Amino acid sequence: RSYWGWGWADKFPDGAALRGLAERVRLFFQQAELVPRAALPPEQLRLPRLRIEPPPALAGFCTSDRDARIAHTYGKSYRDQVRGLRGDFAAAPDLVALPKTEDQIASVLEWCGANDVAAIPFGGGTSVVGGVEAAIPPRYSGALSLDLRGLDRVLELDPVSRAARIQAGATGPVLEEQLAAHGFTLRHFPQSVECSTLGGWIAPRAGGHYATLYTHIDDLVESTRMLTPRGVLESRRLPASGAGPNPDRLVLGSEGALGVITEAWMRVTPRPRFRAGATVAFADFGNAVAAARDVAQSGLHPSNCRLLDATEAMMNGVSHDGSSVLLLAFESADHALDPWISRALAIAQGHGGACPEGPVAKSESAGGWRKAFLEAPYLQSALISLGMLADTFETACTWQRLDELHAAVLDAVTEALRRACGGGIVSTRFTHVYPDGPAPYYTFLAPARAGAELEQWAEVKQAAADAVLAHGGTITHHHAVGRIHRPWYDRERAGPFAAALRAAKSALDPHGILNPGVLIDPAD
Amino acid sequence: RSYWGWGWADKFPDGAALRGLAERVRLFFQQAELVPRAALPPEQLRLPRLRIEPPPALAGFCTSDRDARIAHTYGKSYRDQVRGLRGDFAAAPDLVALPKTEDQIASVLEWCGANDVAAIPFGGGTSVVGGVEAAIPPRYSGALSLDLRGLDRVLELDPVSRAARIQAGATGPVLEEQLAAHGFTLRHFPQSVECSTLGGWIAPRAGGHYATLYTHIDDLVESTRMLTPRGVLESRRLPASGAGPNPDRLVLGSEGALGVITEAWMRVTPRPRFRAGATVAFADFGNAVAAARDVAQSGLHPSNCRLLDATEAMMNGVSHDGSSVLLLAFESADHALDPWISRALAIAQGHGGACPEGPVAKSESAGGWRKAFLEAPYLQSALISLGMLADTFETACTWQRLDELHAAVLDAVTEALRRACGGGIVSTRFTHVYPDGPAPYYTFLAPARAGAELEQWAEVKQAAADAVLAHGGTITHHHAVGRIHRPWYDRERAGPFAAALRAAKSALDPHGILNPGVLIDPAD
Repeated sequence: RSYWGWGWADKFPDGAALRGLAERVRLFFQQAELVPRAALPPEQLRLPRLRIEPPPALAGFCTSDRDARIAHTYGKSYRDQVRGLRGDFAAAPDLVALPKTEDQIASVLEWCGANDVAAIPFGGGTSVVGGVEAAIPPRYSGALSLDLRGLDRVLELDPVSRAARIQAGATGPVLEEQLAAHGFTLRHFPQSVECSTLGGWIAPRAGGHYATLYTHIDDLVESTRMLTPRGVLESRRLPASGAGPNPDRLVLGSEGALGVITEAWMRVTPRPRFRAGATVAFADFGNAVAAARDVAQSGLHPSNCRLLDATEAMMNGVSHDGSSVLLLAFESADHALDPWISRALAIAQGHGGACPEGPVAKSESAGGWRKAFLEAPYLQSALISLGMLADTFETACTWQRLDELHAAVLDAVTEALRRACGGGIVSTRFTHVYPDGPAPYYTFLAPARAGAELEQWAEVKQAAADAVLAHGGTITHHHAVGRIHRPWYDRERAGPFAAALRAAKSALDPHGILNPGVLIDPAD
Repeated sequence: RSYWGWGWADKFPDGAALRGLAERVRLFFQQAELVPRAALPPEQLRLPRLRIEPPPALAGFCTSDRDARIAHTYGKSYRDQVRGLRGDFAAAPDLVALPKTEDQIASVLEWCGANDVAAIPFGGGTSVVGGVEAAIPPRYSGALSLDLRGLDRVLELDPVSRAARIQAGATGPVLEEQLAAHGFTLRHFPQSVECSTLGGWIAPRAGGHYATLYTHIDDLVESTRMLTPRGVLESRRLPASGAGPNPDRLVLGSEGALGVITEAWMRVTPRPRFRAGATVAFADFGNAVAAARDVAQSGLHPSNCRLLDATEAMMNGVSHDGSSVLLLAFESADHALDPWISRALAIAQGHGGACPEGPVAKSESAGGWRKAFLEAPYLQSALISLGMLADTFETACTWQRLDELHAAVLDAVTEALRRACGGGIVSTRFTHVYPDGPAPYYTFLAPARAGAELEQWAEVKQAAADAVLAHGGTITHHHAVGRIHRPWYDRERAGPFAAALRAAKSALDPHGILNPGVLIDPAD
């Protein structure tokens, strides 16, 4: 794994690829320097002095090894990657624990509680919101990164109920391979799926690739098991229940601040046998939005209903004539999908959408989309290494508020990019759609000034987040709160709910050791 | 409204209807007396002495009127109706408040907090689990029933996002009538829909008539507004969010113990224009279960997928030859449903189901089903008045555990009915189905002994609930916890979740005045 950028270092674009990328970027930013910045050799990275040593209580699975500390300092936010490239690892944890059992995790929590050490659960390390960074108040005697990768097995499969008991440290490919041996798949494919883990999806309520119905990991969870300093919070395996507030819904979104998720029973499905898709172009973005809304409200439940604005469509190679593009797809393990795609396409055509090729049966929707989707994080890292400010943010809002929110966000980000960087590009897609509203996802790109990247980014981020909040959006549809979104989350969240959450935190984590700074602060 | 039985007194079966019912019951229970027991005249009902008087702070909307106290003593559980028929109103609240504004509700909470008076939110009074009964510990100086019926308006409609802001005290017919004026419907039709309210659905996570996808009111909630002694807990209108644990999920299931729900934004839909249904008979219950499971796992998402065992099918007039019956139905405001019903029917036929008439387009599924569904609560009251032990309970479990749970429940209840009543009938249906399991719903019927009904009922209830819990079920899929299910809920719920919930309760309701005894006890 790259210590600063996305994914595996040997998959990172090589010199020729970077030069090609720079040429494409220069079409938009003629003045940009675009000189690739090489990562520093590991020995030149700057780490803080150790505050604590690995204790005998955790012997055998806890280290203060320099490489381990480097690998557990950051997630993959823009801020993380810029600091990584600079060699700034000031937030490195003192210790990294790699437990293989729940007993070892319990030992970690016990030792941390007794010694005022912050414990920061770590899955794939792909947080884009500062969710795994040991930015902790001085009252702690140190920080421990609790890496769950040692728990990565599918422990049990129930083919009748179509559910599997999976350990939290399993990454997407690792759990899918084990499920595939039994003919099943979880089909939760966030953009981070190569590296991210089941626990890393549940804790921050990650979004997957389904555009409707099963949009978040929440919808695939049958039951959860979380170790807390107060004991094991395990819910019963149930398809549904009406017995009090749903305990899984406290675990989902807990972001490592209430406990350490160790395993979950997940709803799985056979691999799809039938697929149908269509790529629909719209000259007018508003018409495309209306089409997406009508499909979302139709009860057809497409697996894909992604809307790309003209810039996104061009950048993703889906369209080059200034059209917005709606990608529709259905998948099923049970039945052919012609009536479904026909009706969805008719709805889109009713709003002026053009689909000359008609619906097609395909293994994945829209040509190069899937490849581009999974390579996007590498692309972001490559752009950062070329000195570009390149980041994304996402929200959700009602259809009624969309026009106003969208216009305000575009204005605010465009203006902030102008102030901070002399101008930039903003593009939009809908990643998920609901009967009552879409989840717009924004990408922005501009040349950064070496040394000033974090301040430039902060100015744009603030403008974007303020606009989202002011116009009825949520600070995050599926990227989580972490440390980056915390100020806006605090504004979005009702006071009494904060009080209830703080009380729950104190009950489950009385020493306040779990991921301090994320989600909620312990009671004073 | 009847002060003891279901619904409106003038809709209660008359003498001839009761004699007809008695004749039908005697087919099964030859020895049963079946003498209709008349309700006592209101002046003979026994109420406890008032502990407190209506205070000046609540002048104009708070009363200690005897009729109001009677009408707010009970829900509609078997225990409630038996006690009502006996004239036993020992649990009557001292006061009944009928606020028309949130300010008045806030005044109630403030006054109750300052005076140690228990405040018990009351919607339609249809709880079947003791959720509205003032069975409170002696530390309280009295009890106030907080009736929300004065808040029953649809306040706002957003036709673009298909959502409506509705006050919590609106009953099903009252809110549907207001929505219909704009061409929309909520389509949440629990069996209690004539009398129950929006707040009374949200607080206990009520189940509606949809058999898949939108099974609970949870799935129709866009945002909620709840008054707590700590202030207003209002969530943002969002189609979805990933920002921390979902606040609505703390409100859903709070059962009046965390706050008073005053309004919610609800997802609405145009009335269905297309319908398709099929009634499929199975000689073997196991085959019918397999068919229901395959349909639930097909991704077809029928609006109805009710399985009736042979006894239920007979009692509901759907089949008289000992067959189990699967009722399938689809509805849509967008598209014709032939491909959907054809595939679902093919699945059912693949398991040996017979459907000689084939799929039909109909306004409601399966002939007399809907009428029988809505009249069932009157029927239960009539049976109770004839001296019968007549009650239902429900659960949910994985498909894998179903056979074992179902056999154990039938054994336990049959044996308990034999011990308590000399024998009885148990029937089963699935009200809702999920990819990973069904929600079985049981009805039991036996002759009771006058004066011993509550003990007989308790023996059967305990056997049923113990069996459900022991074999992987939940104590309730959609009837809530209330006071009746509390002992089993405490066993079902993980200890650390109870600790978190208790802490949240103390944070939101520091004086512990809200619906004491339900869900969770305040911290000591």
